[in-house]
Amino acid sequence: MIKPVWIRHASQLATLAGGSEEPVVGDRMNELTIIEDGSIWLEAGVIQRVGTDEELEQAYGHRAHEAQIIDAAGKLVTPGLVDPHTHLVHAGSRQNEFNMRLNGATYMEIMNNGGGIHSTTAATREASHEELFAQSKRRLDQFLLHGVTTVEAKSGYGLTLADEIKQLEVAKQLHESHPMDIISTFMGAHAVPREYREDPEAFVELVTQEMIPEVARRKLAEFNDVFCERGVFTPEQSKRILEAGARHGLLPKIHADEIEPYEGAELAAAIGAVSADHLLRASDRGIQLMAEAGVIAVLLPGTAFFLMAESANGRKMIDAGVAVAISTDCNPGSSPTVSLPLIMNLGCLKMGMTPAEVLTAATINAAHAIRRAHEIGSLEAGKKADVTIFDVPDFMTLQYRYGINHVDTVVKNGAIVVAGGSLV
Amino acid sequence: MIKPVWIRHASQLATLAGGSEEPVVGDRMNELTIIEDGSIWLEAGVIQRVGTDEELEQAYGHRAHEAQIIDAAGKLVTPGLVDPHTHLVHAGSRQNEFNMRLNGATYMEIMNNGGGIHSTTAATREASHEELFAQSKRRLDQFLLHGVTTVEAKSGYGLTLADEIKQLEVAKQLHESHPMDIISTFMGAHAVPREYREDPEAFVELVTQEMIPEVARRKLAEFNDVFCERGVFTPEQSKRILEAGARHGLLPKIHADEIEPYEGAELAAAIGAVSADHLLRASDRGIQLMAEAGVIAVLLPGTAFFLMAESANGRKMIDAGVAVAISTDCNPGSSPTVSLPLIMNLGCLKMGMTPAEVLTAATINAAHAIRRAHEIGSLEAGKKADVTIFDVPDFMTLQYRYGINHVDTVVKNGAIVVAGGSLV
Ligand SMILES: [Zn+2]
Ligand SMILES: [Zn+2]
Repeated sequence: MIKPVWIRHASQLATLAGGSEEPVVGDRMNELTIIEDGSIWLEAGVIQRVGTDEELEQAYGHRAHEAQIIDAAGKLVTPGLVDPHTHLVHAGSRQNEFNMRLNGATYMEIMNNGGGIHSTTAATREASHEELFAQSKRRLDQFLLHGVTTVEAKSGYGLTLADEIKQLEVAKQLHESHPMDIISTFMGAHAVPREYREDPEAFVELVTQEMIPEVARRKLAEFNDVFCERGVFTPEQSKRILEAGARHGLLPKIHADEIEPYEGAELAAAIGAVSADHLLRASDRGIQLMAEAGVIAVLLPGTAFFLMAESANGRKMIDAGVAVAISTDCNPGSSPTVSLPLIMNLGCLKMGMTPAEVLTAATINAAHAIRRAHEIGSLEAGKKADVTIFDVPDFMTLQYRYGINHVDTVVKNGAIVVAGGSLV
Repeated sequence: MIKPVWIRHASQLATLAGGSEEPVVGDRMNELTIIEDGSIWLEAGVIQRVGTDEELEQAYGHRAHEAQIIDAAGKLVTPGLVDPHTHLVHAGSRQNEFNMRLNGATYMEIMNNGGGIHSTTAATREASHEELFAQSKRRLDQFLLHGVTTVEAKSGYGLTLADEIKQLEVAKQLHESHPMDIISTFMGAHAVPREYREDPEAFVELVTQEMIPEVARRKLAEFNDVFCERGVFTPEQSKRILEAGARHGLLPKIHADEIEPYEGAELAAAIGAVSADHLLRASDRGIQLMAEAGVIAVLLPGTAFFLMAESANGRKMIDAGVAVAISTDCNPGSSPTVSLPLIMNLGCLKMGMTPAEVLTAATINAAHAIRRAHEIGSLEAGKKADVTIFDVPDFMTLQYRYGINHVDTVVKNGAIVVAGGSLV
């Protein structure tokens, strides 16, 4: 039985309270519901009480001797960060391709040198369950060190039934064995594999008729995602794939309008997707439709940064009433990072979001994007005891002192898993 | 007496050898002189030998029992990073101003709310030597944790003789008491203080006639810097200030062409400045003149990032034959970071430099920019035993896995000061 944890004297306790029912939109994204000199009691894996030092002293002072006490004086306490879009489970590393690109190689030169998504597919197919597990576990440890306590993880580098299931089973085993919570998304429609290049429709068939039913039967995923982009899957194919998932209980998500405007945002609104992700080239009308339909925009400014492109316009989306979440997009091709704190910096400096908005986007709205807002994403009694403590005095400094991992302590399910910036 | 340190089995040992005489330019910036399965013996604060595991085993194997042995298998070993441009010694923090800016406040609203450089000047003037020392020491610890073993530090938030000397004396005391080496630059001409707003010429007089002679007499600085920018100091004033410094033995540096093209690069070349820094708006002619005169370009992409501006064109400068160094510009107004590793990422992703070039820029060329290339900036026998070990297998991955502090170990003057990513 782990001891209760009592976090006290927080300079700022950003609770994000009050947003669990509906994704947070508009001006409310800029409000964090902050308690100064804040205190929080965690017990049995659950947040028992959140309040001022005085209130908690009164309620729990007599039990202080039972608890592990964390002095958060001068520090910022937030909900454990939530990353709602990762390609966590994969094999291989593509630093050579990155180096070639910066040395002026063309796309074709890189492809001919074995680069691109197909190289990750090949490596992931080749890797054993154990190898995939080991590589992905290292990334999860790094996510924890960067303050993240829940990640979504997509399949999509297998692209055969067996290899997609291998990825999802690794995610499941990680969820069960690692402190991190992992929410699984099936993404068989991540790319058209080489062997279907001449007949992509046959691959759509495979995804909808074989993969989705089997993944659902095995309960290996909650969401179903598709890469809707010219040259990958058309809006029409995407719609069929997402509808097939929905018939099997998999909630729709969509990679939309990343490289070209392709009516991905419009499709997301039309089918009632939980989230539409990327959206660098989303149309104004698509954004408006997303706001009306309550589709969450999961923005991935790290990907734009790494690909040297313009970021999505987070400012405009918030102003249009869209609920915005942000994420690393952790993947070996276009965003090889686990630093959600840096992504928050990019949210401010590349998407015009405020320091408060990026924190909302990385906590409660990220939780909504994976349908977990009832149990994570804010510091409220009854939610999971997932808490991150940053060694900065306030939420503004977390963005102001950019490029630094300020995580001091992470509590996951009521257990201290990171202390003094290191894994416990 | 500290034990010898033997670093062995490095996946890559990036020596940067061969560039100590002249700043590294052109294609040579893209060569790192890498030893695989590399090994290095540090003793008496000095690098004794650099080579392959085999070579070092032969030379030092019989003394292994005497040494602290660091197994760098799977890791990248580089010279300790060098940051050639910081405003390290200052008081106060301006996160509120940053937050106001992102919430849409105008420049005037921020100024009226007590923001801007004058707020740092006021805080620095008010701070005691001890307060300044404590705040700056914390930043130095953070620099070490990010792999930096030498920083340049500028005065320029005092703007009175006494307060400039206070800043420089804090830097001196830090140099003497902290593992980090600090190279001091006098920068009385950082801004025209409010009390001279009506008569900036009188302030130039004060800098040249009183401050420079006194700073030189007390041997508190090696370099003399000036903020040459429209509305601050004109090229003509800058020239007078730098020439006055040179007469007293202070080598010239210049903040040039940051906000507007102002012939700062041209001036740097004309007077033979050691470096010209910022250069976002430097003219093609200025860049050409810098290349011919051997002026080092110290580029500060973090500042552009934080101010949401276009970075300097590092790619173009390298291609034009300029020796490029990079730096955090660590300061509370326009670049509140100590993460030289993130600055290197920005060098790749915002300035078009290659992974090898940014490492050259943050080591040997940075050492040249502070006239220390004879003793730091490369791993060569006889140089200071300043070494950084990154938990990545190669120099490409250091940039590829962006946004993460990969520093595992730092050795400074032959002593292990960071291990496992934490201060020893
Ligand atoms: Zn993705
Ligand atoms: Zn500066």
